[in-house]
Amino acid sequence: MNTQPPTQPLPTQPAATTDLIDTIEQSLSSRDLAAASAALSPISTRQMVQVLDRLSPHQCAIVYRLLSKQRAVEVFEDLSPELQGELVRGLQDAEVAALFEEMDPDDRVWLLDELPASVAPRLLRGLSPHERELTASVLGYPRDSIGRRMSPEYVTTHPELTAAETLRRLRARIDDAETIYTLPVTDSARRVVGVVSLRDLLAADDDTLVDAMMQDAHTALADADAETAARDCTDRGLLAVPVVDSEGRLVGILTIDDAVRILKREENEDAARQGGVEPLGRPYLSTPIRRIVRSRVVWLLVLAVGATLTVQVLSVFEATLEQLTVLALFVPLLIGTGGNTGNQAATTVTRALALGEIRPRDLLRVLSRELRVGVSLGVLLGLLGFAITALVYDWQIGLVIGCTLVAVCTVAATIGGIMPLVARMIRVDPAVFSNPFITTFVDATGLVIYFVIAKAILGI
Amino acid sequence: MNTQPPTQPLPTQPAATTDLIDTIEQSLSSRDLAAASAALSPISTRQMVQVLDRLSPHQCAIVYRLLSKQRAVEVFEDLSPELQGELVRGLQDAEVAALFEEMDPDDRVWLLDELPASVAPRLLRGLSPHERELTASVLGYPRDSIGRRMSPEYVTTHPELTAAETLRRLRARIDDAETIYTLPVTDSARRVVGVVSLRDLLAADDDTLVDAMMQDAHTALADADAETAARDCTDRGLLAVPVVDSEGRLVGILTIDDAVRILKREENEDAARQGGVEPLGRPYLSTPIRRIVRSRVVWLLVLAVGATLTVQVLSVFEATLEQLTVLALFVPLLIGTGGNTGNQAATTVTRALALGEIRPRDLLRVLSRELRVGVSLGVLLGLLGFAITALVYDWQIGLVIGCTLVAVCTVAATIGGIMPLVARMIRVDPAVFSNPFITTFVDATGLVIYFVIAKAILGI
Repeated sequence: MNTQPPTQPLPTQPAATTDLIDTIEQSLSSRDLAAASAALSPISTRQMVQVLDRLSPHQCAIVYRLLSKQRAVEVFEDLSPELQGELVRGLQDAEVAALFEEMDPDDRVWLLDELPASVAPRLLRGLSPHERELTASVLGYPRDSIGRRMSPEYVTTHPELTAAETLRRLRARIDDAETIYTLPVTDSARRVVGVVSLRDLLAADDDTLVDAMMQDAHTALADADAETAARDCTDRGLLAVPVVDSEGRLVGILTIDDAVRILKREENEDAARQGGVEPLGRPYLSTPIRRIVRSRVVWLLVLAVGATLTVQVLSVFEATLEQLTVLALFVPLLIGTGGNTGNQAATTVTRALALGEIRPRDLLRVLSRELRVGVSLGVLLGLLGFAITALVYDWQIGLVIGCTLVAVCTVAATIGGIMPLVARMIRVDPAVFSNPFITTFVDATGLVIYFVIAKAILGI
Repeated sequence: MNTQPPTQPLPTQPAATTDLIDTIEQSLSSRDLAAASAALSPISTRQMVQVLDRLSPHQCAIVYRLLSKQRAVEVFEDLSPELQGELVRGLQDAEVAALFEEMDPDDRVWLLDELPASVAPRLLRGLSPHERELTASVLGYPRDSIGRRMSPEYVTTHPELTAAETLRRLRARIDDAETIYTLPVTDSARRVVGVVSLRDLLAADDDTLVDAMMQDAHTALADADAETAARDCTDRGLLAVPVVDSEGRLVGILTIDDAVRILKREENEDAARQGGVEPLGRPYLSTPIRRIVRSRVVWLLVLAVGATLTVQVLSVFEATLEQLTVLALFVPLLIGTGGNTGNQAATTVTRALALGEIRPRDLLRVLSRELRVGVSLGVLLGLLGFAITALVYDWQIGLVIGCTLVAVCTVAATIGGIMPLVARMIRVDPAVFSNPFITTFVDATGLVIYFVIAKAILGI
């Protein structure tokens, strides 16, 4: 009879971690390292990572040095590459070398990508020859390729082996592999001819040949874009995807948890850029204010400079405005609606691009769809705008507002829809070219449309 | 010697699928079903899913009926719940019942959630008793809970069993389980006392007790929020998480691929709402224009009604505008910059909320951070704005623009930063309350600030 108490569900432990951080911050600010050390000793590795995540970089370095050597290695492995990078810059060479040797080759490359290029060769020289070779094989691939994110540690089997032989082979080399749940099947030239799942191996009779139970391999080219390969892996719900070179030879394996990690990073970048900020790369509450300002100021300046276009457009129509000040009242409403329509289109198309639903060659189809959507939205809003303005002001102003809404919505939806595709074509991140950018552009265009229509209808 | 040719890497096959869709669309529009059928017969299940994804709902239903019975079941299982729902509405009861019996219990619940509530009891009655019971156990949990997304099919082991016994047990029941790579360890009361990985089972000696090799279970409460539990699973890189009731008893299992699916859906919704559109729920190119318009028009109307606030604010200051039309020139620039600053703050905070980095109780910390960020950005932009406007116009106008930028950036960053937290507090999706909403709100506030400052400095 087992009398162990049940493990309690501990989904996030928010309160405990927050209190802990308060205690540690207090100990640090009163320079009481013994108290901080005491507060840290009972907590789990996972919680330790959460604590470091929420401390400032400076506090992080102090706390990290309070950990025992064994503990430090465990915690370090679980940190995000950015935080690892920050810590490494504060540690001594010998300490870094020890940590570096302990890491998996793919995690090592994530870290190297965070560090200044000059540091990499020094760190690599410190590795044992076997680890150095594994790491170098991953480092050989371009920065955004899946080759750079794969694990070079895998166990394979061959078509002519039996299930039992494969299981024995697997058990003998179980510590060397990133995953054992999907095994690539290779021929004598190391080319991938299929995959076999551990589930099928266990379900099969001992003497069933791998040849008889392997399935077609869904592979990824090592030079292929990391995000595309990762999305492909998770879309298909594959636990692991063999990574091959241009000859179809196995060079590594991408596991679903690494695929998730790659996508999460991309999502973060996209979400940030869509709102006109650079990704912070570390948790919000522990990011210095200075760094948050830096992540936003460049975009804000670029957009403000773009917005001076609206000042120029309005200057051109200044005489019209002096004649009829009432026109000024509708400027924010009209350009705001244009901006919203443009953003809606851009959001939908950017997302569809990211999910691979559309490609740049679909430009004309997107154009025709957004044109129709824009006209529909414009007519709906325009009729409403006409009715209300005609009631409150007069029917001529109503007509100007109604017609402007139709035109602005159509132009905005079309521009917003094709802009992400154009960005992709000229190889810029579509999320960069997105909402705030479109707003600014649509603002200026909308003003021109507004005053041209006003002058035509009102005859001024 | 195996002479099979190497499997070619087939990451997405864009060209092939696109051509295929063209062929099928042509066959359908010329009502040549035989040609469509011929085009479909050689393609893989996966490609078939891609084809259906890109056809209109009407075309989808026709093509689906051309498939053989066996084929249809395979394809149906791989479709998204939305597309399944669309198809089901077009099929006969007997056809639906046959499909429904073949599905996994968790997939069945995804589908039921897409169908009108009245359909569910009829479909459930058609199931075999065992399948009905499994499905009902999942359906018993609330809509957004992880209980509703878990699989009720799992294999467990017990602390007093050996590695060899567990492996035998596993092999005997291998077809019943959603995953075999992480086994929950339960006591006699079905409470989860740990987990053991298949890797550890295979690496261990035959007579090692499970008790000796099991690890602490990271579990999820069945009633817990599905997104939080899924994020927790992927953040930790766990292949599977046992789902337990409030007593700690095992009720199901959440696998990483299902966790990824839950998060993908949430990301899509968030990305859509952030841009002021309702999620389409199906691929962009195959969504009818009508439905795209519907996904945008409500938000656009709400925002336009909100924007009438700006018209009212400007009406109040109409006399000032008539006196000094030059003030109107800067309106789009000023409110645009305010909107951008607010969006940046909202994007950062919404993301941090979604990732669990901050919680509503951090409101004051966020407020103080965004206040400081806003002032910093405002001073930078304000100095620049003052310099340029003073040069081009005169120093008094320059002073108005400079001071307004400082005030608007501060207010916008603060509002943008706390709005997502307020949304969360009143239990609204923070992404809804987001960028377009903040833009509209900041527009009106910005105008008031602008004219108040202008009147004070210019003495009008």
